[in-house]
Amino acid sequence: MTKYKINGKRLIKNLFDMAQFGMNEKGGIDRTLGSQADYDTRKWIEKYWGERLKLTCDVDAIANIWGEKNGKENLLPIVIGSHHDAVPDGGKYDGSMGVLIATEVMESILENDIRLRHPLKLISFTGEEPNPYDFSTLGSKVISGRLGIEDLEKSSHRETGESLRSCIARLGGNIDELEKARIMPGNIAAFLEVHNELGGYLESKNASVSGVSTITGIYREAVRAVGESNHAGTTMMQDRKDAFLAMGELAVEMDKATRNINNPHVVATMGYVKLTPNEANIIPGITESIVDIRAVDRNRTQQIIDAMSETIEQIEEKRHVKFIRKCILDQPARIMDADIAQIVHEEIESNGEQALDTVSMAGHDAANMQLITKSGMIFVKSIGGKGHCREEYSKEEDIVKAAQVAMNVIIRLDRELD
Amino acid sequence: MTKYKINGKRLIKNLFDMAQFGMNEKGGIDRTLGSQADYDTRKWIEKYWGERLKLTCDVDAIANIWGEKNGKENLLPIVIGSHHDAVPDGGKYDGSMGVLIATEVMESILENDIRLRHPLKLISFTGEEPNPYDFSTLGSKVISGRLGIEDLEKSSHRETGESLRSCIARLGGNIDELEKARIMPGNIAAFLEVHNELGGYLESKNASVSGVSTITGIYREAVRAVGESNHAGTTMMQDRKDAFLAMGELAVEMDKATRNINNPHVVATMGYVKLTPNEANIIPGITESIVDIRAVDRNRTQQIIDAMSETIEQIEEKRHVKFIRKCILDQPARIMDADIAQIVHEEIESNGEQALDTVSMAGHDAANMQLITKSGMIFVKSIGGKGHCREEYSKEEDIVKAAQVAMNVIIRLDRELD
Repeated sequence: MTKYKINGKRLIKNLFDMAQFGMNEKGGIDRTLGSQADYDTRKWIEKYWGERLKLTCDVDAIANIWGEKNGKENLLPIVIGSHHDAVPDGGKYDGSMGVLIATEVMESILENDIRLRHPLKLISFTGEEPNPYDFSTLGSKVISGRLGIEDLEKSSHRETGESLRSCIARLGGNIDELEKARIMPGNIAAFLEVHNELGGYLESKNASVSGVSTITGIYREAVRAVGESNHAGTTMMQDRKDAFLAMGELAVEMDKATRNINNPHVVATMGYVKLTPNEANIIPGITESIVDIRAVDRNRTQQIIDAMSETIEQIEEKRHVKFIRKCILDQPARIMDADIAQIVHEEIESNGEQALDTVSMAGHDAANMQLITKSGMIFVKSIGGKGHCREEYSKEEDIVKAAQVAMNVIIRLDRELD
Repeated sequence: MTKYKINGKRLIKNLFDMAQFGMNEKGGIDRTLGSQADYDTRKWIEKYWGERLKLTCDVDAIANIWGEKNGKENLLPIVIGSHHDAVPDGGKYDGSMGVLIATEVMESILENDIRLRHPLKLISFTGEEPNPYDFSTLGSKVISGRLGIEDLEKSSHRETGESLRSCIARLGGNIDELEKARIMPGNIAAFLEVHNELGGYLESKNASVSGVSTITGIYREAVRAVGESNHAGTTMMQDRKDAFLAMGELAVEMDKATRNINNPHVVATMGYVKLTPNEANIIPGITESIVDIRAVDRNRTQQIIDAMSETIEQIEEKRHVKFIRKCILDQPARIMDADIAQIVHEEIESNGEQALDTVSMAGHDAANMQLITKSGMIFVKSIGGKGHCREEYSKEEDIVKAAQVAMNVIIRLDRELD
């Protein structure tokens, strides 16, 4: 434990300052990839890092924002950060808090003139949240080599049709130079991300902060039910090919199969559903959805996929509707670095708290970073277990604790890693 | 049966001409109330009626288009027409065909210098289809007194937010003078509407055209399931309040209850469904739908409503979701005028066809017109029973037959009514 203290007041002020970008009338944050609010937040970050902290600022080819301070020795950089985008009508903590805790760690280190051995880099990732371009954790996938230009060049905004190429260019990146953003394993000493838990485990254990042992596997499938649009009055029940009923029935059965597994680390969701033509007096000819299944154990995921396949066969026969399925993500669970987890554990304890190890059921940029460097996470309690909604909330005292633990962990890593 | 023949070629040409307005790349028609295509079609109609047929043209306060020719005697007018708007990605027959058959009847009467005793009026109704302002058969509801300014003045477009007042003004009407558009019972001698069947009954009976005995009752309810938005990964299955699952289950149960009644004249549909926030990794906090139930016998409708109420109670308890329900339409079945039905019947037979009487499971402007005058309908066979979709199709020969029957009926009505 170091003698240096982070500045809690400044951190909280920054959190509220950043929350202005994209805040809607209900107090939620609308700051999806490529939005004006995304752009405005980036400018705020670049100004803060470049002008106030006088870091060397850089925007890479996928528009991740970097800020660097030199180290005393010729060592690989330690990186700390998170993302600044948000889900529609989301909260002010998810992502932003991690970026601003990283910023506060850097500012405290500079203020206290702590001379680190390693260069220290801040990062704010591009497009961590699911977005209308259908790539989540976009920035960290690109730098870890999970996505290349061939994956991205055809992508366009689900509603506006803007190409991802154009969106990234607006944000200061360049998809045609994507390879330059990629970081090969062995070029970063360590990565640390602080994030709100988004779930209720810490609250249930009465813990303010925790380390993270594993990040869940995520499987996503685009499912499209194809029936036939027809008049809602003149088409007799037995003649219908109702794509919405088919999807509704699939949702109910998927939910049932998932609940039957009865494991807190196995969940399945249909959060996105789109009907065509979506008019009160027309039988829906097409219904699309995205199924999201998460489990630490991939066998559990498969169990739900198999149950869906069986149900779909029955529904197709019963409702005269065809299903088209396409896996769009099958990301294995990722175990976080044991050394960093141990240091996080110790620093939480020396801060006078119990140290828990948590499974993250949300995906995070740290899961991709673990592919190229030793990576760790620190979670902050979410009141009521809320996440991805405007009601999400972390207490100031818990945020300040997490920032202090993060600074201590960075100083330990700087001392202990070569 | 008259000796006068309608001009089938001209009618079909007009049908294809009108189909250009709002035709999308797939060949469907996008011509919803207030759209540019709606506007363009109106201009075409006004020009055809005013300049080519030299009728006295008028747009009333709700923007219905009227075209009038005088009669020999001081009698009430006979009215014939339908609507020119379309459902999204709809067909070129629904509505347009009725307007153009009315136009062809008028043009043939003028060409043959048939001197009618009654004034003959054409009408093309405003906003017959369900639309983003949530009023179907808008034009006929206003003239029959079913909707007044207090119903319409607060309405706005579901997506653009444009007020209905502004939309109607753009189309040449004036919501503030709505009372002037209203027609009290006893001011029209008769109303006739030709329309494609939109269902498969005529095809199953191998009939080209038919009369219509009854127009179905329609009940519509806006249903909103309110749960809680939360993270799709970190929220355990038992902690979820998933509004989409609640709605999906309701849809499946409503479908089951409706099929159990097992009556071709009882149907129920959820054609419109909207999730909030509608993102793959967020549990839907709100899901809205519109339930459309149709039956000739209102008791059957009630049976489905009651089954829904029972199911909702169970779902609310099981899924920790609240339902908010609001009836937005409860229109009784309407029996068409027996005298007109008899004349239609006779004219179909003298045209060498079998005469069927059909129940319409679709709502039509004629159902509202029956409130203020003797009203009748003529149906044209829909191939494959298709309606409200771009695949809807009626054969040219059947359309021409319907136009001929319509002209014969108008001449009979003119002779027989006082």
